[in-house]
Amino acid sequence: MQIKPFITLVGAGPGDPDLITLKGIKAIREADVILYDALVNEELLSYAKPSCALIYVGKRAERISTSQDYINKLLVDYALTHGHVVRLKGGDPFVFGRGGEEIDYVRQFDIPTAVIPGISSSLGLTGLQQIPLTYRGISESFWVITGSTSDGRLSDDLQSAVHTRATVVVLMGYAKLAQIVDFYQQHGKGQLPIALIQNGSLPNERIALGRIDNILEEAERNLVGVPAIIVLGDVVAKHQAFENIKKELQSLTV
Amino acid sequence: MQIKPFITLVGAGPGDPDLITLKGIKAIREADVILYDALVNEELLSYAKPSCALIYVGKRAERISTSQDYINKLLVDYALTHGHVVRLKGGDPFVFGRGGEEIDYVRQFDIPTAVIPGISSSLGLTGLQQIPLTYRGISESFWVITGSTSDGRLSDDLQSAVHTRATVVVLMGYAKLAQIVDFYQQHGKGQLPIALIQNGSLPNERIALGRIDNILEEAERNLVGVPAIIVLGDVVAKHQAFENIKKELQSLTV
Repeated sequence: MQIKPFITLVGAGPGDPDLITLKGIKAIREADVILYDALVNEELLSYAKPSCALIYVGKRAERISTSQDYINKLLVDYALTHGHVVRLKGGDPFVFGRGGEEIDYVRQFDIPTAVIPGISSSLGLTGLQQIPLTYRGISESFWVITGSTSDGRLSDDLQSAVHTRATVVVLMGYAKLAQIVDFYQQHGKGQLPIALIQNGSLPNERIALGRIDNILEEAERNLVGVPAIIVLGDVVAKHQAFENIKKELQSLTV
Repeated sequence: MQIKPFITLVGAGPGDPDLITLKGIKAIREADVILYDALVNEELLSYAKPSCALIYVGKRAERISTSQDYINKLLVDYALTHGHVVRLKGGDPFVFGRGGEEIDYVRQFDIPTAVIPGISSSLGLTGLQQIPLTYRGISESFWVITGSTSDGRLSDDLQSAVHTRATVVVLMGYAKLAQIVDFYQQHGKGQLPIALIQNGSLPNERIALGRIDNILEEAERNLVGVPAIIVLGDVVAKHQAFENIKKELQSLTV
C-alpha cells in the first residue's frame, strides 16, 4: 500500500478530555501516528486505533531528544514512513504552541497539512469559571499575551495593555506574577480585579480571585501555583464568588 | 417529577458542526429545551433527545420578540417549567455573545448555571486557514476586538492596537472595513498583511488575502462580504497562498 504522508495539528483543549472538538476526535481515530505533548490529557489517546503509534514528545528542560528541531524532524519522518501523523497539542495549536513553526518546517517537504483548532485555555478556563472575556459597557476586547518572553522581560504588549480597557489574559506568565502586580500598581491599577486559574477544567483545579493589591496573598492562601493563567480586567468581578464577596462587604458597611 | 432548573451556555463553534466540543454535545443530549441563535449550525440540534423543545431566538432587526430581554426571560421561564435549558450560541458564549448578560440575569433567580466554551471564530477560522495567531519573533500576542461599537466609531481598542505588534482579529467589523483600512494607512501600515474570512469552516467559505493597501480590491475580486472576520498582522503572511504569491513575485523580479 502506498503511504500518503499527511500531518494534522490538533488542539486538545485545556485539560478536560471532553473539551476537544468532535473533529479533533475524528482525526485521532484516523491517525497512524500521534505525537503528543505533556499538556495533553492522555485519555484522548484511547480514541486512537490499536495500530496507531503513540509518541510522547513533551518537552523537558535541556533534553535535546524533545527539542523543537527534533519534533519537526519526527513529524516529517513519521509522515513519510507511516502516513497520517496527528500532532496533538494542549490548548490550541497556534496559541503559543509553536504550531506555526511546525507547519513551516513540514511544508518544505511538500507534505500536506491541516489544522484543527482547540479550546485555548485563555478562553476555555475563563469560560468554565463564568468570567466573560467581553461584556457590554465593561470590555469590548480581550488580549492574550505570553508571559514567557525570550529575554525574560515583561512583554512589550503587556506594557501597552495596562493603558487599555481590554481584558488581558497572560499565559505561561505565572512565574512573573509579582512583577506583573508591581507593574500594574505602578500604573495606578491596584484595584483592578484579577483571577488566577491553575489546572483549569481538571479535578485539581485551583483558583484565586482578588484585586492587584491583594492577589499575591490570595494566591498563597489558595495554594495556587504553576501552571496557572492570569486574567486581568473588570470582567473578573463578574465571577460568582467575587460577586458574593462584594455583597458581603456591602452588608458589612450598611 | 420535580423540575430542577439549570441553564448551560454552550458554544457551538464557528460553523462546521464537528467544531463543537464533546462536552457541548453531551449538554445538548441532556437538554430539555434548547434556545439557539442564527449563527448556530442546525445540524447540532440532531443530538437533542426527541422530547427536547427547540426554540429559535436568532435576532432579526427590530423584532422585539427576539430582543435580549426577551431571551433572558425565556431562559428563566423554560428552566423553571422544563428543567435543563441549553443556550446554544455561535462561537464561544463569552466572545461578544452577551453570554455574561444572560448569566447575570439568570443568577437573580438563583438558577444554577454552567458554561461550556466553544471555538471562537477568532481562533478557529484563522487556525483552519493555517494562519498562526502567534509566532516566535513575529507576534507574541493576539487581540480580539469588536468592530460593532454602540456609537458607530472604531473601537478605542483598535485605535490602540495599531501601535502594537499584536495580531489583531476584528469580529463583527466587516461593514467598517474601509474605515479600518483608512485608519491603518494613516498610521503608515499600508504594507501590513490582512486576511478576510467569510463563512469560515463551511462549504461556502470565502477568503481574501492581501495588504492593507490592496485588500479592498482583493475583497471585491474574491466576492467576500458580510459576515467576515478581519485578521491584521504579519502572521497573515504565513498563509500558504500568501507564501506562494511572495514566491511568484520573487521569481518575477529575479
